[in-house]
Order: sequence, then structure tokens, then C-alpha cells
Amino acid sequence: MSDTVTTLRKLLAEALGSFFLFACVIGSGVMAEDLANGNNAVALLGNTIATGAILAVLIAMLGPVSGAHFNPAVTLAFRIRGEIPTGEAFAFVGVQIAAGIAGVWAAHVMFDLDVLQYSLKPRTGTGQWLGEFIATFGLVLTILGTIRVNAAWVPASVGLYITAAYWFTSSTSFANPAITIARSLSDTFAGIAPADVIGFIIAQLAGAVCAVLIIKPLYGDQ
Amino acid sequence: MSDTVTTLRKLLAEALGSFFLFACVIGSGVMAEDLANGNNAVALLGNTIATGAILAVLIAMLGPVSGAHFNPAVTLAFRIRGEIPTGEAFAFVGVQIAAGIAGVWAAHVMFDLDVLQYSLKPRTGTGQWLGEFIATFGLVLTILGTIRVNAAWVPASVGLYITAAYWFTSSTSFANPAITIARSLSDTFAGIAPADVIGFIIAQLAGAVCAVLIIKPLYGDQ
Amino acid sequence: MSDTVTTLRKLLAEALGSFFLFACVIGSGVMAEDLANGNNAVALLGNTIATGAILAVLIAMLGPVSGAHFNPAVTLAFRIRGEIPTGEAFAFVGVQIAAGIAGVWAAHVMFDLDVLQYSLKPRTGTGQWLGEFIATFGLVLTILGTIRVNAAWVPASVGLYITAAYWFTSSTSFANPAITIARSLSDTFAGIAPADVIGFIIAQLAGAVCAVLIIKPLYGDQ
Amino acid sequence: MSDTVTTLRKLLAEALGSFFLFACVIGSGVMAEDLANGNNAVALLGNTIATGAILAVLIAMLGPVSGAHFNPAVTLAFRIRGEIPTGEAFAFVGVQIAAGIAGVWAAHVMFDLDVLQYSLKPRTGTGQWLGEFIATFGLVLTILGTIRVNAAWVPASVGLYITAAYWFTSSTSFANPAITIARSLSDTFAGIAPADVIGFIIAQLAGAVCAVLIIKPLYGDQ
Repeated sequence: MSDTVTTLRKLLAEALGSFFLFACVIGSGVMAEDLANGNNAVALLGNTIATGAILAVLIAMLGPVSGAHFNPAVTLAFRIRGEIPTGEAFAFVGVQIAAGIAGVWAAHVMFDLDVLQYSLKPRTGTGQWLGEFIATFGLVLTILGTIRVNAAWVPASVGLYITAAYWFTSSTSFANPAITIARSLSDTFAGIAPADVIGFIIAQLAGAVCAVLIIKPLYGDQ
Repeated sequence: MSDTVTTLRKLLAEALGSFFLFACVIGSGVMAEDLANGNNAVALLGNTIATGAILAVLIAMLGPVSGAHFNPAVTLAFRIRGEIPTGEAFAFVGVQIAAGIAGVWAAHVMFDLDVLQYSLKPRTGTGQWLGEFIATFGLVLTILGTIRVNAAWVPASVGLYITAAYWFTSSTSFANPAITIARSLSDTFAGIAPADVIGFIIAQLAGAVCAVLIIKPLYGDQ
Repeated sequence: MSDTVTTLRKLLAEALGSFFLFACVIGSGVMAEDLANGNNAVALLGNTIATGAILAVLIAMLGPVSGAHFNPAVTLAFRIRGEIPTGEAFAFVGVQIAAGIAGVWAAHVMFDLDVLQYSLKPRTGTGQWLGEFIATFGLVLTILGTIRVNAAWVPASVGLYITAAYWFTSSTSFANPAITIARSLSDTFAGIAPADVIGFIIAQLAGAVCAVLIIKPLYGDQ
Repeated sequence: MSDTVTTLRKLLAEALGSFFLFACVIGSGVMAEDLANGNNAVALLGNTIATGAILAVLIAMLGPVSGAHFNPAVTLAFRIRGEIPTGEAFAFVGVQIAAGIAGVWAAHVMFDLDVLQYSLKPRTGTGQWLGEFIATFGLVLTILGTIRVNAAWVPASVGLYITAAYWFTSSTSFANPAITIARSLSDTFAGIAPADVIGFIIAQLAGAVCAVLIIKPLYGDQ
């Protein structure tokens, strides 16, 4: 019984976090593009600062409840390491996708856009797939490594990692299968055409698995 | 007697904090708009960075004295939770509004503008009201949740939350009834037409109440 | 003997810190203006981010040695509070000015500008003087208050305070008599005409004194 | 045997950190220049924020393994102080250069550029050499000093120092011989013509040596 309550609290944390994270990614993209008069570097700055900031906030606040994954690639990494049961992992992923899509739709309502959309923005090709592989490899490495040696830094590190990765990867670092799906439902700055979702997700999951594999040689028994 | 002294110290803290916060919101908006040559994304970046920064500073410095509310929606949340007496709560709100307006006027004097103004900028409609509801819900959730599980992060989290919310809500996240009133008295970048104040405040208070309600299911007895 | 050594170490810390701080204020202003194609809001963003960042770094590194003043208004505040002897305070101020000017000149050499210059940029009037009064009042309040209740936050708070104050004061917050003098020797983005220096310094010292006076009513015996 | 394992773990940490750092410097420069429509101040902002952020992340995550040098000038400083054996220092430098170049090439692949390039961007002259001397002097001073008096601040301080130094030095603060070599292999925003590499490296090593020399007078026996 108490375990059920705990799991429900974790799922509530994943839902709230995914809702705010995804609403922020989409909403700040809309705001930035609206205001930037076609200067996409300025638009990406606004999108970056907002996303990095909300990530740190959500992890500091919700990490002690659910681990603050908000990301199926992260949940997969913890599943492989045996730190979350399989059933709970599937529930996490379901909640991340559902609450994240709700966040996208909330952003649409806030900005007076049609709720139901799909993106027309192509994001595909070897360069972008390598971008998603590297972005997710680095994200999962940051989470698993920083927890191990500098746990108080996790909220700041994840926020700062995504801040950097928005700029240094050609794909602007989605690094999250749930957000990739959700962003396909928004024909805005942060969107991705539905047909290109699967390529991104494969690259992301491959990056997450490689990060799990490198943790032991990197940190040893420490 | 000692209690009276303590209350006066708290009110002084709320006054100083509201003065600097509101002067910063208005002043940085004026500076940003003056310099940005019509690129409103750049203007919002300047306004955002200044506001997020001063919030963290003020909370780190004044939080141990008064709790660093500077916001009637936050004071309401603590009142509902029984963590501040009713009389003190009313005094807080009065000081927040009065000192905040003084901050707005100080910004006008600094920038050689007429002291007494009212804004002509319309901010209304379902999208913006949802924005204020979500913005204030998230702000109060951040404060109440982070105090509970990661107290050292509160100054950073509140600053970073507003940094994000300036971008991901269509209303640029006022999230504060006192600042909404004060910003109606400034016909500058950060202003709001007086007629639109009431809609914002209702949405803000509703968001604050919902955040209080979700804290218990989210954090349980922890 | 040991005291002399300690004082020399403090003066070395003040010299290094003032050199880097002032070189950063001038150098980042030159870089920002050179690159910004006349968009002064973007230039101020670059100037702001660099200055806020270096301040936090220098205080974290040199605060444990000298207190990391780099600013006669801060040294005055500690002198009034009896936390630094008069002779050492004068030595601090002399070093801050001399090393700070060396930093300005180093910036000129780095950017292939004439070493010896004086600024032609007028910065005067009631609005700007009020700006300097408020800016310095807030800076000294931040330092004295945060040391008292949240000492680990001092490096971050001072960096973030100046980040905000560059935007919310009409004078872009010099808040430092030594830097005001040094900036009069640079006809670049961050300059100030020599004739306008005295007005700024009077406002700054008045702000520092007022901040010292408000500390006791604000923090009581705590 | 255990020592060999430890050394391999350190080299793996240096390799991962140098790969991500250098990929970020080049990749964020390409992204920023692509999007900035010729406004180089905006481009440098994107490049700065990404680089400062990834540095803090990598140091928090990898510092406890290898010290997180990613920089032959830093390795030299620790070698002079006797805190790393000569053989390990040479291995560090080799890995920093090799993995860093791999990072540059990964950035090229991500952005669909030719893998093998060399830069055509001249960066030379007294001003730029003084810039590299000051930049590296300050970087090594920050690392050695902050470790001594405020160790928890090291990841933030190094990230913030480079954030500032990108703006206040005329050379945009390479401050790293390995990255200077690697950047000569990229004809993009962050590049440097191969013929200009040696001048930068000499200035950087001189700055590192001077920083080592000033640590003892500055911090005494503390």
C-alpha cells in the first residue's frame, strides 16, 4: 500500500516535471521566434536560457521524489543499471509522454495557437543523428557520473549540459524520446516532422546505452 | 516587544526586497527597450537576466529575515498553510505593494521619465490568463517544494524559475499581484494596462491555491 | 612581521582582483561594442555577462585572503563597521585605484588601442546620480547582509547583483569609486568623462553609508 | 596493477572531457555563426554560454577522476607543483590533443562539414599574445587558488572565468595549447590559422608559469 502511494507520488512528480519542461521548450521557442525578427541566434538564446533554467529548477524540486527523469532515455539507463523496476519504468515513460504532450498543448493555448498541430520541420540525416547520439550519450553520462561523484551538482549540471548541447549539436539536442514525440505535435520553432522522429529516438537510445557502458570503466569501483 | 521588533524587521526586509525587485523589473525593461533598436527578443533577454539575478540575490540575503516573499500570492500560500499569522500576512501585502510602487517610481526617476504614469499596454485574454495561472502555480510549487527537499537551492531556483517563465508563458510571467499593480503604473516595456490587472490577479491567486493543494499528494509526509 | 606579510598578501589579492575586474569591464566593453554592429543591448549583454562572471570568480578565489573588496565604497563600509584598520583601508584604496588603472591599460594594449586615453562620454544628471546611489546602496547591502545570513552565497550574489544592476540603473551601475576613476581613462563603451567622475563618487559613497546604517535595523542582533 | 587501472581511468576522463569540450567550442561556434546573420556579438554570446556551461559540467563530473585538466597548460602547472608525475603528464597532454581533435572532427560531421580542414583565420600580434598570456595566467590562478580556498567552487569558477575571458581578451581566450592546435584544424568561427598557433602556445605557457609563481606569495602557508 505504502509502495503504491510512493509510486503514485513518483508518477505525479514525473507528470509535473514533464509538463513544465515540455511546455517550456515549446513556449519559449514560440516566444523567442515571435520576438526575434528572424535572428535565429537570438531566438535560440532565449529558448536555451529558458530550457536550461527550468531543468535545474525541476530537478532540484522533484529529484528527491522520482529521480526527475522526464526522459525515457534516462529511465532506460536506470533500468539497465537495475535502479528502477521494469513496471515502474514503463509507467514513467507513459507518464512522461502523456504529461509532456499536455505541456505542449498548454503552450499552444497560452500563445493562442491551434492545440492540435504537427510539425513540418525536417530534422534528419547523418549529422543530426550523430548529434542526437552524442547529445544523449553526454546527458546520461552527466547524470550517472555526477550522481556518483558530485551529487549536489546534478540539478545545475543537467541544466548547464542542455544549455551547451542546444548549441554544440547540429540537432539542438532533443536528447529525449518523449520530447521528440511531443515536439512532432507542434509546428513551431522547436518542432520536428513526425517522419523524422524515429531516427532521432534510435540515436538517442543508442547514446544512452553507450553512456551506461562507459560508466564502469570510467569510475571503477569508486 | 521582541515580537514587534521581529515583525518590523520582517516588514523592512519585504520593503527593501520589493523595492529592488520592482525597480529592477521596470528599470531593466526601460534600459533593454531603449538599447534594443526594436529587437524585442534582445530586450526580453536583458529584462530576464536582470530579474532572475536580482531575485536570487534578494532571496539569499532577505530570506532568513522575512521569507523573502515580495509577492502577495506567495504570502497567501504561506497563510493557507498556516505558516504566517493573518495580521502579518496583510501587513506583508501592504508593504509589498507600497514599497514596490516606490521601486517603480525610483526607476522612472533614474531614467528621467515622468514619475506618475499608467500603462497603455493591453495584456488580456484566455491565453495570457492561462499563462499567469501556470506561471504562479509553478512559482509557488517551486518555493514550497524546494524548501521541503532542497532548501539551499531556493534562491537559485526562484531566480531560474522566473528566468524560464519570462519566456515560456505568453504573459511573460508576472506571477505576482503586487507587481501587476505596480507595473500598471509604468507606461514602459514591462507595463500592463490598469483595466487588465484584475484578470491577471485572479489567475495568479488561483494558481497559488492549486500549488498549495498539490504539495501534500506530491511530497506526502516526507 | 607576520602581520606585515599578511597585509602584503591582502594587498596583492586586492591588486590582482582589481586588475582583472577592471580589465574585464573595459575589455568586454570594447569587444562587445566592436562586434555588436550598433545594437547596444547586445553589447551590454556581453559586457554584463563578462563582468558578473569575473566578479564571482574573483570573490570565490580572493575573498578568503583580503575580503575581495576591489572597491573603495566597500572598503569604506568595512572601515565604518570597524572591520578593517584605517591604515589598511587607505592602502586598499590606493592599490585598488593603481592596479585597476593598470587593468584598464592592459585592456587597451590587448585591443591595440592607445594606452593613454580619457573618456568623452557624458554621464551626469539627477537620474544617473540616483542610479549610482541605489546601485551602491544595494551592492553594499548585498555584501554585508549576505555575509551575515548566507555566507556561501557571497561570490554568486555579488556577481548576480552587478548583473542586474547593469540593467536596472540608468548609469549601468559603476557602484565603485576606483572603477569610476579608471573608466574615465578609457574612451570606450564603458567610459565616463573625467568631469562627471566626482558626481558619481559622491553618490556612491552616500549609498555605501546608507547601507551600513540600515544593516542593524534589518538584521538586529542576529 | 591498480595504479595502471587508475591511470587508464584518468586518461579516459581526460579523453571524454577534451572530446566534449572541443566539440562544444567548435560546434557552438558553427551553430552561432550559422544563425547570427552576421551579428558577431550574438554569435560570441552563443559560443560563450555553451563553452562556459560545458566546462562546469565536465569539471563537476570528471574532476574527481583525473582533475579535469583538458589543457596542457593546466597539466604543466600541476607538473611544476609536483602534483602529477612526468610520465602521466605527457600521457595527459597526448590524450588531450588526440581526443580534442576527435571532438573537432565530430563537430564537423554533426554540421555536415568536411572533416579535414585547416583554419584561414589570422590571430596574431602583440595585443592577442598579451591576451593569451593574461587569459592563461588568470585561468591557472583561478584553478590553483580556488582549489586552495574554496574547492566546491572550482567547476563554477572555471566555467565563469572562461565566460568572462571570451569577452575581455582580444583573442577570445583560447588559454589552452591543445585547443589551439585543434582549432587550427577547423575553418569555422573558432578557428586559428596554423601559422599563428605557436605564438599563442608560447604566450599560454608563459602565463601558466607566472600563475604558479604567484600562488605562494598570494596564499602563503595557508
